[in-house]
Amino acid sequence: MKFYRQSLDGCFESEIGIEGLSKPGFDVALTNTRGGVKWIRDAYHARKWPLLMLPEERGDLDSLQSIADVIKDQSKTILILGMGGSSLGGQTLQGLAAMDERSEPHIVFMENLDGHTFAQRLKGLDLETTSIIAISKSGRTAETAMQVFAFVSAFKTAGLQNLIAQRFIFITAPGKNPMRDLASDLNIPILDHDPDLGGRYSVLSSVGMLPAMLMGLDARALRTGAQSVMLDLLDNDDCEPARGAAILSSMAEANGRRTSVFMPYADRLARLGPWYVQLSAESLGKDGKGLTPISARGPRDQHSSLQLFLAGPNDKVFTILSHKHPHDGPQIFGDLVAEEFPYLAGKTMGELVAAETYALITTLRNQRRPARVFEVDAVDEMTMGALMMHFMLETIILGNVLGVNPFDQPAVEEGKKLAIKYLQGT
Amino acid sequence: MKFYRQSLDGCFESEIGIEGLSKPGFDVALTNTRGGVKWIRDAYHARKWPLLMLPEERGDLDSLQSIADVIKDQSKTILILGMGGSSLGGQTLQGLAAMDERSEPHIVFMENLDGHTFAQRLKGLDLETTSIIAISKSGRTAETAMQVFAFVSAFKTAGLQNLIAQRFIFITAPGKNPMRDLASDLNIPILDHDPDLGGRYSVLSSVGMLPAMLMGLDARALRTGAQSVMLDLLDNDDCEPARGAAILSSMAEANGRRTSVFMPYADRLARLGPWYVQLSAESLGKDGKGLTPISARGPRDQHSSLQLFLAGPNDKVFTILSHKHPHDGPQIFGDLVAEEFPYLAGKTMGELVAAETYALITTLRNQRRPARVFEVDAVDEMTMGALMMHFMLETIILGNVLGVNPFDQPAVEEGKKLAIKYLQGT
Repeated sequence: MKFYRQSLDGCFESEIGIEGLSKPGFDVALTNTRGGVKWIRDAYHARKWPLLMLPEERGDLDSLQSIADVIKDQSKTILILGMGGSSLGGQTLQGLAAMDERSEPHIVFMENLDGHTFAQRLKGLDLETTSIIAISKSGRTAETAMQVFAFVSAFKTAGLQNLIAQRFIFITAPGKNPMRDLASDLNIPILDHDPDLGGRYSVLSSVGMLPAMLMGLDARALRTGAQSVMLDLLDNDDCEPARGAAILSSMAEANGRRTSVFMPYADRLARLGPWYVQLSAESLGKDGKGLTPISARGPRDQHSSLQLFLAGPNDKVFTILSHKHPHDGPQIFGDLVAEEFPYLAGKTMGELVAAETYALITTLRNQRRPARVFEVDAVDEMTMGALMMHFMLETIILGNVLGVNPFDQPAVEEGKKLAIKYLQGT
Repeated sequence: MKFYRQSLDGCFESEIGIEGLSKPGFDVALTNTRGGVKWIRDAYHARKWPLLMLPEERGDLDSLQSIADVIKDQSKTILILGMGGSSLGGQTLQGLAAMDERSEPHIVFMENLDGHTFAQRLKGLDLETTSIIAISKSGRTAETAMQVFAFVSAFKTAGLQNLIAQRFIFITAPGKNPMRDLASDLNIPILDHDPDLGGRYSVLSSVGMLPAMLMGLDARALRTGAQSVMLDLLDNDDCEPARGAAILSSMAEANGRRTSVFMPYADRLARLGPWYVQLSAESLGKDGKGLTPISARGPRDQHSSLQLFLAGPNDKVFTILSHKHPHDGPQIFGDLVAEEFPYLAGKTMGELVAAETYALITTLRNQRRPARVFEVDAVDEMTMGALMMHFMLETIILGNVLGVNPFDQPAVEEGKKLAIKYLQGT
């Protein structure tokens, strides 16, 4: 069962002329992905990378659901602390839940560090009905630690130290680390973060599944969707992640198109954009290589970046996510409307969005800008799980093709050390 | 009075070697901005572009404030409809107001079109205490029209048609257009949108000032900040917008650095990013020219895009916005903390952010990645007005240097026509 269709038509020279790939060129690029596909299969069979095993894992979900139920019952507000990959997976799933500011429990990802924001958030927060989930694989992320300390202090200042063990939960790797030590001092429960699971590949673990359960999403369905993509890769050399990696790598290497624009046409898929940006940037941006990912959103950004996308430097490759369900939302009736905007009469909001999606795809082709299109029939947990797994596997294959390690992020270490040096005043 | 300092040091070869500009090279680039500066001065003296006159205008603000006061009094929720430039200026100012989901009136920018989001938003919305501001200069923007129709229908369906004239307000250009016709049929009040003021340059007009007043911001101070930048440009050939345009244009043309990363280190400045992206992309992305703007946020994106920024393709120029006020937020005391994270003991959250900002700037320099740095002492209306005016003027000068018209957006018209064709089924 496939939960999405990936069309590469708009990337070929038959569609967009010499700006596109030739079929033989694409075949070579696809052959070049074989090594990456084999690398993933070998890791799967050796049970080496937890990200490959998680889609079929189910045994952890019941106890996680119990924890989520307790947190939900006791909380009006749930703050999820964590930076980058510790936060973006959950945020992406929150888009699917389509909660708004009136939903309860109100789930807030505090994914940045800012004293003003923090003070603003704390003001008027009822700590007695607030739960705090802090996620840091290493347990050493300074921003997350600073936020944890500040919230622990806030509970103590409010005379609520006896609540800390019930209201906080940490997700961090086993072994000695500062966050784990703090948890042990304060009797804060800990969920183990698999040490072999990088933050940007962690969404299917408790890092993403606990937030998903708090939002009322179906964790099993998320994994089932992901599993369908994994199974396809195990069976099929020309699986969708390989085809995607072939397009992006050949566009980058042969055509110098090193900017990858990611543009969903559905609000519930929109938060995939920042998640994809982090996944791609940290996995591939090394040794002078990598694609520069850009997150956009349709149709909103037709009124923002589209002018540049269509008429600026032709150095980009586009990924358009289209929701094939045009009958969403209110329908427009009435003579008044018919007179003013005749083409909107009797149409639904979803039909206008669908027309704009087609129009964008056609315009990109007419302007000879290469684009691949993902189509989904439903926006639900299965689809979201499948899309996330697709892009994780595609990124790993891309890393293999480009010759970079998709699992490390060496360049950001210098800044961390410097920040500590500045704070120590040395 | 200057409300910000722009340091270009990190862009010169004396700092970052051959990746940087030579001083003579920069002097040539600065001389190339003279034409753009003169173009703006001439337009100012001929009173031709409203965006240049707005900073010194005050006469419109009292009546706008009265309108804002009425809307505020009658509303628990205010929805602001509008796409692109009709929305992003107000959103940027909302960042400054640092409101959250508990603030009242709750102000929501509906800047996209999505049937599911719309239905979700409508569910549970108390229309009797909801006001709707719809902004479309042309009055012909299909997405905004669709949303307006849907909300008008919702009021009618709820039997509240008698409230429509009090709860809706449109901002649109004079002359016949569909939105104006609808307003006239329904007795909806209209604020005139200056037809000579493009959406992406409209934040200082009612388009941004009405939302600002609804958020309790000081509109006069916003304009005063903007005016300081305008006065500097009138007086000073080497004004800050000219210096900025010189850096970006020479980086793009001489060095092939055509990606412009915009990265504030303060949540209240973060929404400048998407606003800057729209301003830059629509103004400059034409004739194969233009910079590709990317919005990032510090320190959050140190855990996302930074790996790519530091070690990926060296084809970017960075704009870092730094808030020189490191004593914000909670201070960390306690032996426990000192033991776990000794470098955080006694520090404030703001001090950690400041240390990370310095660390980033140093790391960019060490990796020979060109960066300019804006420093502000306060994050307030004056500073925000000054920064926004800086980037608007810099963009216009850049358009002049690159030889593109910074006021049109021709490429997006084809898509609009195609969408209508698809809806008509022809």
